[in-house]
Amino acid sequence: MTTTATTLKGQPLDKASLESLLRRRMFYTPSFEIYGGVSGLYDYGPPGCALQANIIDLWRKHFILEEDMLEVDCTVLTPHDVLKTSGHVDKFADWMCKDPKNGEILRADHFVEDVLESRLNGDKEARGQKVEEKEEDPKKKKKKSKGHEAVKLDDAVVQEYEEVLAQIDNYNGEQLGELITKYDLRNPATGVQPSPPVAFNLMFQTSIGPSSNIPGYLRPETAQGQFLNFAKLLEFNTGQMPFASASIGKSYRNEISPRAGLLRVREFLMAEIEHFVDPEGHKKHHRFHEVENIELELLDRHTQLSGKTITRRLTIGQAVTDGLVDNETLGYFLARIHLFLKKIGIDQSKIRFRQHMANEMAHYACDCWDAELLTSSGWVECVGCADRSAYDLSVHAKKTGAPLIVRQRLDEPKIVEEWEVEIEKKKFGPFYKKDGKTIETAILATSQEERGKLAKELEETGKAVINVPSVGDGKVEVSKDLLAIKWQKRVENIREYTPNVIEPSFGIGRILYSLMEHNYWTRASEGGDEARGVLSFPPAVAPTKVLIVPLSSHKDFAPAVRKLSQKLRSAGLSSRVDDSSASIGKRYSRNDELGTPFGVTVDFQTVKDDTITLRERDSTRQVRADEDKIIEAIRALVDGTKTWQDIEAELPLFEGQQEVEVTVR
Amino acid sequence: MTTTATTLKGQPLDKASLESLLRRRMFYTPSFEIYGGVSGLYDYGPPGCALQANIIDLWRKHFILEEDMLEVDCTVLTPHDVLKTSGHVDKFADWMCKDPKNGEILRADHFVEDVLESRLNGDKEARGQKVEEKEEDPKKKKKKSKGHEAVKLDDAVVQEYEEVLAQIDNYNGEQLGELITKYDLRNPATGVQPSPPVAFNLMFQTSIGPSSNIPGYLRPETAQGQFLNFAKLLEFNTGQMPFASASIGKSYRNEISPRAGLLRVREFLMAEIEHFVDPEGHKKHHRFHEVENIELELLDRHTQLSGKTITRRLTIGQAVTDGLVDNETLGYFLARIHLFLKKIGIDQSKIRFRQHMANEMAHYACDCWDAELLTSSGWVECVGCADRSAYDLSVHAKKTGAPLIVRQRLDEPKIVEEWEVEIEKKKFGPFYKKDGKTIETAILATSQEERGKLAKELEETGKAVINVPSVGDGKVEVSKDLLAIKWQKRVENIREYTPNVIEPSFGIGRILYSLMEHNYWTRASEGGDEARGVLSFPPAVAPTKVLIVPLSSHKDFAPAVRKLSQKLRSAGLSSRVDDSSASIGKRYSRNDELGTPFGVTVDFQTVKDDTITLRERDSTRQVRADEDKIIEAIRALVDGTKTWQDIEAELPLFEGQQEVEVTVR
Repeated sequence: MTTTATTLKGQPLDKASLESLLRRRMFYTPSFEIYGGVSGLYDYGPPGCALQANIIDLWRKHFILEEDMLEVDCTVLTPHDVLKTSGHVDKFADWMCKDPKNGEILRADHFVEDVLESRLNGDKEARGQKVEEKEEDPKKKKKKSKGHEAVKLDDAVVQEYEEVLAQIDNYNGEQLGELITKYDLRNPATGVQPSPPVAFNLMFQTSIGPSSNIPGYLRPETAQGQFLNFAKLLEFNTGQMPFASASIGKSYRNEISPRAGLLRVREFLMAEIEHFVDPEGHKKHHRFHEVENIELELLDRHTQLSGKTITRRLTIGQAVTDGLVDNETLGYFLARIHLFLKKIGIDQSKIRFRQHMANEMAHYACDCWDAELLTSSGWVECVGCADRSAYDLSVHAKKTGAPLIVRQRLDEPKIVEEWEVEIEKKKFGPFYKKDGKTIETAILATSQEERGKLAKELEETGKAVINVPSVGDGKVEVSKDLLAIKWQKRVENIREYTPNVIEPSFGIGRILYSLMEHNYWTRASEGGDEARGVLSFPPAVAPTKVLIVPLSSHKDFAPAVRKLSQKLRSAGLSSRVDDSSASIGKRYSRNDELGTPFGVTVDFQTVKDDTITLRERDSTRQVRADEDKIIEAIRALVDGTKTWQDIEAELPLFEGQQEVEVTVR
Repeated sequence: MTTTATTLKGQPLDKASLESLLRRRMFYTPSFEIYGGVSGLYDYGPPGCALQANIIDLWRKHFILEEDMLEVDCTVLTPHDVLKTSGHVDKFADWMCKDPKNGEILRADHFVEDVLESRLNGDKEARGQKVEEKEEDPKKKKKKSKGHEAVKLDDAVVQEYEEVLAQIDNYNGEQLGELITKYDLRNPATGVQPSPPVAFNLMFQTSIGPSSNIPGYLRPETAQGQFLNFAKLLEFNTGQMPFASASIGKSYRNEISPRAGLLRVREFLMAEIEHFVDPEGHKKHHRFHEVENIELELLDRHTQLSGKTITRRLTIGQAVTDGLVDNETLGYFLARIHLFLKKIGIDQSKIRFRQHMANEMAHYACDCWDAELLTSSGWVECVGCADRSAYDLSVHAKKTGAPLIVRQRLDEPKIVEEWEVEIEKKKFGPFYKKDGKTIETAILATSQEERGKLAKELEETGKAVINVPSVGDGKVEVSKDLLAIKWQKRVENIREYTPNVIEPSFGIGRILYSLMEHNYWTRASEGGDEARGVLSFPPAVAPTKVLIVPLSSHKDFAPAVRKLSQKLRSAGLSSRVDDSSASIGKRYSRNDELGTPFGVTVDFQTVKDDTITLRERDSTRQVRADEDKIIEAIRALVDGTKTWQDIEAELPLFEGQQEVEVTVR
């Protein structure tokens, strides 16, 4: 589970430097910091905001526009009844322990994980091996190092611990409690065992209305709003199946003890798709052929249960054929998720798809694969892709009586033969009096198989015995003048069914954080200054596309700078001007940290002939041409229609000004 | 206050038809409808979502990009302490009454307004005048008509009621209670007077953390997160003033009894700007000259207090010169708000700017103007533009000790001469013992004027008498060997100040609803079908830009349709295909209701020569040209660089196919 994180260029990742950069450049910052902060809540500053907006924009194009999905925007406030029906009130919980000595509240699975990992690290140290620690926040690190002593373990114990860790997500509360007792796991802060795990519901509660009349929650996912609107969406789609809805919005989970920065927060942006599909026909997908040759790293359920974390590289076509991934629609989305992550700049070597184990799956899911990204905190679930079957639509339809179904006109009428019940109402009611309704309901609830038996009984004995637990001794005799059960033929022109749902669900904040780690490196690798960090975001997601750097803040440059800004704005390219008194090198350096892919310098030559230099962030190489050609080049680079190599081949290289630390004023 | 709403073409607005259209086309829909709904909560369907996204996109360009504002995204969850300091815990409330008979909860100002308006309507009816009612939801209408009887009032009473209504937003709870008693206002549902108004805090409460340890609220505005990040934002802006931050996100208000659809909801999208400005220098704005000639309809505070609602049309330059609008920065934003509303398609004749009266202003504001839009529910506040002065930064700085200030290096050092206090600490403490600290604090708190007097007293009598209420008889003698007060000269190089804040604050949902009303009309005015509604959104905000209509669903058209979709997508133009079996006329009609400005027909000719027809929604006129020319034309129309007249002048008119109701299959 532990890992050594690396930068984009394969350098060991110095997480402290990266975090200092991200705070300094205001990608994100703890919320309410001047009030001491609240754990699990973060604000995005200007570059974080722009990065998030660009990821969302690409997401909308890649999924919603590409496949004509129906976007909806539903409320976060959700009344109790809805989440009671969906199962969240009863089951959306984590396991929580309390340290009886200092009152500290611990999330049970994380606690077990931490103590076992600490023991394994102590063992490695004792054996003289290199210890690779997951880095989280400094507080936790300090606590861990306190509990982590160089004690050698038996080989069998090491193997046992590793097997537990490989399936840590598969344990329920009772099992986690057993692990705590069995291995005598103690809180390093106090040296005592925590209390047995209890369930803690993760939803934030509130009440709606002036007299607290409607208990409610902040939604824990955007999905429920989409399910409740199913009938309207189907109508909007002129009744055609399959189709998908999508939603981008905040969701809330009252995490037990959030740590690890943006990776585990209490308020987060989600982007979710609900793809509604006919369960008949093996959930085929008409565009599956477009993705079937894409290779994914897969870690299946069985491998994890055997205590291992080895992935297999397979085409998604092969994975579906082999039955590893259940169906084409699920497979199609796994591949599309992979393509999206690649497009925004996630490191290809740091993605895997992990299948959920049975106990780990959410209460509504029948199969689920997570896209996990490798970060300094280990493999992190960033996208879930669950087959929720007909669970949600069925429970809401049952509870409300709303027809959350598809009525499909059959091309050829279907002939159905089955046992049908006929009750002689006029006599039945008066005969059974107050029990009549109950008995009738019990008869109507019988299965085809039972009806077959009852029909035989009626024919042979003239009466049938029905099980009605709430009446008399639970057995009720019904004679054939009150009840007939006949083998009937019926012609159906309409088929009614409840669609199944495949749900790709994206945690945007986690993806955003992983993206920052994956694209970070320092110029140290090129013999440069150790401190010069770079965030090599692809141009399409970079917060700002172009930095405009006038040689100095001299007023002669102002008109050229203004004209250039306006031209870039009308070309749809976001830019910022830095006319501070810092040296050109320092100004570029600041923008390398902001991930700005291109820079243009406005100098004395510009004022004369309208030419400007264009600098590429990663190579720091420059070309020079007239303004319009440079803007056209930037547009092509941001659209992805040209690479920097193409631009260097087209426009003359510029080597006049080096990025020297000379303040020109 | 009452008004007759009209459509874009001046037809009387049939609100029921419009609402039926908006529901049918899923612009919005009550949330949780299959569970019976929760008042004040609405979901946006696909066209509502797209309309909202386009408004936000234009907002971001018009404000954030145009002025290099710093966008932040802060959390909705907010701990109690922050909102206690900001004043929201104590003061963010509406006045609520209860009907003692049926327990109904009423918002006091709305109740007074409704009953008085109902009496005025009854009076008009008795006088045989036309009654113009605000339309709200059907439930309310029914209730009102029950209370509204044709009773003639004295002329003096009519005038009194009208004066009360003109300043209805200016009353506090006690005053509303007095109005209820004075005019014997009774709930029409029960015929009894409601209880005296009590304050009801509008924030949704929750608690953060596993053991309910941090009480918190859902934010009622996005502003606080921006204030708390002030110091970081200033640093991000390399210390330069003035600057603005901006935020787009959900806020929450637990409305007492929300009605009126999207106009009064409990969860809503806001877009807020906090423009930080030096309070010295009359809050000038360097771009004010760009807007000074823009004319606005202004309704000032004094006019309202005199019981009238007459607006004045003035240039913003004149309004600032006259002191009607306090300063240039406030005036600049009023004009920019006006331009934004115009750009997205708000009817110019249905905008006014209304100044808040003293009691009406939020607790933090020192001046405030609302942009109000005229709808079928009367004039509705859609944008607030408040001068919050230094209120928020000051209270948070005082509470937390964080330096939410600007340190400005002075161009020329400033020489300050003033009375300074010198206390002889070594003797002072031992002399006064336990009272020493209190007396010292009292001395340091003296004003310059008091110090002048004390200095004279010391010089003349060798001692001074200080007022210290909590010590002895409140008078303390201090001799000149313990205290000196001297006229000192000091050189200051840095000036420290707390910026003032001008806050334009947009309720996106209200703007969106008003936009739908302002752009709605029916083809009836052109002798067409009464039921054929049209939403004439400007192309830039329209949910979908292009409808692609193949003549039929015949497979021969499929490749051309696919190619066209792809080309439009790469041109950044959202499109939808309607290949249903409905007639072309019906399909266009459906999209007129969705506000789709352009339609292209793919027919047999297209398959032969790649030409397509382009239809304009409002005129229903068509041109025909080859595909690429048509796409270029659409791009120019959406960008706003060309009008439909330009296109008709460039491309040949097409009059072959009329929009006849013939099903081609």
